[in-house]
Amino acid sequence: MIGTPLLPEIRELIERRNFSALQRIFNDWLPVDLAELISDLPENEQAILFRLLPKDVATETFEYLDLDAQENLLTALTQKDVTHILNSMSADDRTALLEELPGTVAQELLKLLSFKEFKIAKTLLAYAEDSVGRLMSPDYLSVKKDWNINQVLEYIRTYGHESETLNVIYVVDDHGKLKGELMARELLLSSPDSKVRDIVSEDKIITLTATQDQTDALEAFKRYDTVALPVVDSNGYLIGLVTVDDMLDVAEEEETEDIQKFGGIEALEEPYIDLPIPQLIKKRAVWLVVLFIGEMLTASAMAFFQDELAKAIVLATFIPLIISSGGNSGSQAATLIIRSLALGEISIRDWWNVMRREIISGFALGGMLGIIGVLRVVLWAMIFGQLTLQWIFIGITVGISLVGIVLFGTLAGSMLPLLLKHWGLDPATSSAPFVATLVDVTGIVIYFSVASLLLSGILL
Amino acid sequence: MIGTPLLPEIRELIERRNFSALQRIFNDWLPVDLAELISDLPENEQAILFRLLPKDVATETFEYLDLDAQENLLTALTQKDVTHILNSMSADDRTALLEELPGTVAQELLKLLSFKEFKIAKTLLAYAEDSVGRLMSPDYLSVKKDWNINQVLEYIRTYGHESETLNVIYVVDDHGKLKGELMARELLLSSPDSKVRDIVSEDKIITLTATQDQTDALEAFKRYDTVALPVVDSNGYLIGLVTVDDMLDVAEEEETEDIQKFGGIEALEEPYIDLPIPQLIKKRAVWLVVLFIGEMLTASAMAFFQDELAKAIVLATFIPLIISSGGNSGSQAATLIIRSLALGEISIRDWWNVMRREIISGFALGGMLGIIGVLRVVLWAMIFGQLTLQWIFIGITVGISLVGIVLFGTLAGSMLPLLLKHWGLDPATSSAPFVATLVDVTGIVIYFSVASLLLSGILL
Repeated sequence: MIGTPLLPEIRELIERRNFSALQRIFNDWLPVDLAELISDLPENEQAILFRLLPKDVATETFEYLDLDAQENLLTALTQKDVTHILNSMSADDRTALLEELPGTVAQELLKLLSFKEFKIAKTLLAYAEDSVGRLMSPDYLSVKKDWNINQVLEYIRTYGHESETLNVIYVVDDHGKLKGELMARELLLSSPDSKVRDIVSEDKIITLTATQDQTDALEAFKRYDTVALPVVDSNGYLIGLVTVDDMLDVAEEEETEDIQKFGGIEALEEPYIDLPIPQLIKKRAVWLVVLFIGEMLTASAMAFFQDELAKAIVLATFIPLIISSGGNSGSQAATLIIRSLALGEISIRDWWNVMRREIISGFALGGMLGIIGVLRVVLWAMIFGQLTLQWIFIGITVGISLVGIVLFGTLAGSMLPLLLKHWGLDPATSSAPFVATLVDVTGIVIYFSVASLLLSGILL
Repeated sequence: MIGTPLLPEIRELIERRNFSALQRIFNDWLPVDLAELISDLPENEQAILFRLLPKDVATETFEYLDLDAQENLLTALTQKDVTHILNSMSADDRTALLEELPGTVAQELLKLLSFKEFKIAKTLLAYAEDSVGRLMSPDYLSVKKDWNINQVLEYIRTYGHESETLNVIYVVDDHGKLKGELMARELLLSSPDSKVRDIVSEDKIITLTATQDQTDALEAFKRYDTVALPVVDSNGYLIGLVTVDDMLDVAEEEETEDIQKFGGIEALEEPYIDLPIPQLIKKRAVWLVVLFIGEMLTASAMAFFQDELAKAIVLATFIPLIISSGGNSGSQAATLIIRSLALGEISIRDWWNVMRREIISGFALGGMLGIIGVLRVVLWAMIFGQLTLQWIFIGITVGISLVGIVLFGTLAGSMLPLLLKHWGLDPATSSAPFVATLVDVTGIVIYFSVASLLLSGILL
């Protein structure tokens, strides 16, 4: 029941170089907490503390460190220590480290690996980024169908120490083809002399392939509520496994990407604070410029209504208010629909149901804003003692325009993601700002059209 | 290795009432796939198919069904079947079902439970929504320290069938106080005659409490990469466990809530498509109205610059273009910062580092849009053969305003979430539209101020 690290105390012990006291304290700590402490230290102290850890804890702690601290330790530790860590760390964590390092550094580190680990590392690095292969661990246990449970238990005790998980054991035939899986649960509940073949059912194994996208794996884990899934090659031979603890990280990465795309930014490959500023600018510039060029249409629309504008400058006053309401209602609708699509709550087939709901919502929301808008215009005129028929008509123009624009916003916001999906595009990409831009242009046209109709002879 | 359900074939068998063939097919299916098929069927056919399933598969399939299908089956099945399902389904899934049902229906169903299950259900329902208690399963195994592994294995074989997971077994003292955990891995790797006390370490157990928020549990699972965590009461007595498979759902719910808040909607408690329209409107109306009232300041700002506007109507033409650029750059910045805060990549202490990055980014992005803006104005004037010194000055006004507004947008978008966090508020709430509204008002002021300076004597 470990709490937050007692940093002031630790700090004092470091200052006083009281390493034996530190070692005693660290003995009670979990690797993940040790890793957090070390990551928080200045770079020159990280290696000092890391060397205090017993060998077996050291590797696990290293796996939990953030990338910066890992890189720092790789340069600060002796080659012997680095060799030990790289050879003993789990294959999937090693892949994640090597893929982030500069190519030449990674090549140097690969040379430190034993022949067996070198082969594994090379194989895993050969899979595409964001593929299941990069998460895969080749450290699994496999047993044969004609064994009995006692034999399996013996086998696990002898060979299981290296295995990534023992929550599931795989059953393969003589050629290594995956034939079934034996959950720890089944293993523990079965009587010791029952045969593997009597426990394992063949038909119902869910498998992944190494080249599949990691999001497919995430979907499979969500769907089948399991702790590990086997990875097979195209011929059905078992080549590794993926465990559920990696999935929470995949889910987090996915979410970050979705949110960034939605906010009109290309997905960042690194944390915001670590990304070099030129790249940060580049990730934002593309969509910002695209939207800016799109938004230029508003200037053209405004120019088109120049005569109306000249006759009634007061109309210009309400343009930002009106078009922003369309943008806000549009991004609300886009948010709802994109998320529902992502969760599989709705599909393209539901378009009419969605449209019906959005028409009703759009009228209701537009009506509310419309009433508030009319009140705003009329009350202001009253307060400033200028209430004339003109102002009442301007108020009505603003009100009716708001209904139209909010309605258009909800429809554009809800239908555009469905259309993008229908065309095979990603509905999330920059949807909110894109909808806002579309709605801005349309909003101006709606507003001036309503004004032309209502105010001709009065103001225009 | 099951694929997508063969729906046309299934449909034909249902039409022809060939139940024995259906039963044969279903024999090879996983509960989750059966659940998907049943959920997709019209309500009147769901019970027909569900009754074909063997009893043990039926309960598990029921657990995977979506809520609508579960509700439908509860009314369509015999009381005997309902009683069996409710008593045999896992406690956490049952809690999720009962909490969604209308109070009176839930009360009726509770009466069908055995005394033991009734007590469990009542206890779990007493915990707050979104608390760990609602995810908790009371079906765990606990053993004593002085047992040896063989005794533990015997105990599991006898009593483990009901347990939610066997990937971890808990060690308690004579009073039920949690003393340690025994992972399936340790259990399987240890020699049968070793003692539990020699394998389990006491100091390093991570625990949850039933009243904690589910997001705390999610954080703990992410941090400690584990498959299950024990839940204890305030005195350290073991009362249940939470398994990692529920965490993917919590992560998904969390993400949905974040995205919805970010898009300016109150978090929906039900899927979009199931939410009654009046509620859908209500969830959107609050923020839409708040933002609308905020955006009214734009009208006041415009009215303040009425004289400038009257002298140079052409200025109005570029207002939507200019303020939307500020809004877009602001929501980009807000997206980045809110996400980084949520991931713990940055904290309030980093405000100066963030501000520095955003000032540089803002100048660069504003500069790009500014140059494009000047070109747009000047080129249009050239194309229409109106290129005068006036137009060049208007172009420069637009360009400089864009730099100022984009810079302000990035600063507002990045600093507002940090400020909200500093004040103890949720940085995600409605940030993107709120920033856009703030930037709209400021944008108008910046634009007209630049115009007053640059164009006085020329246009103004």
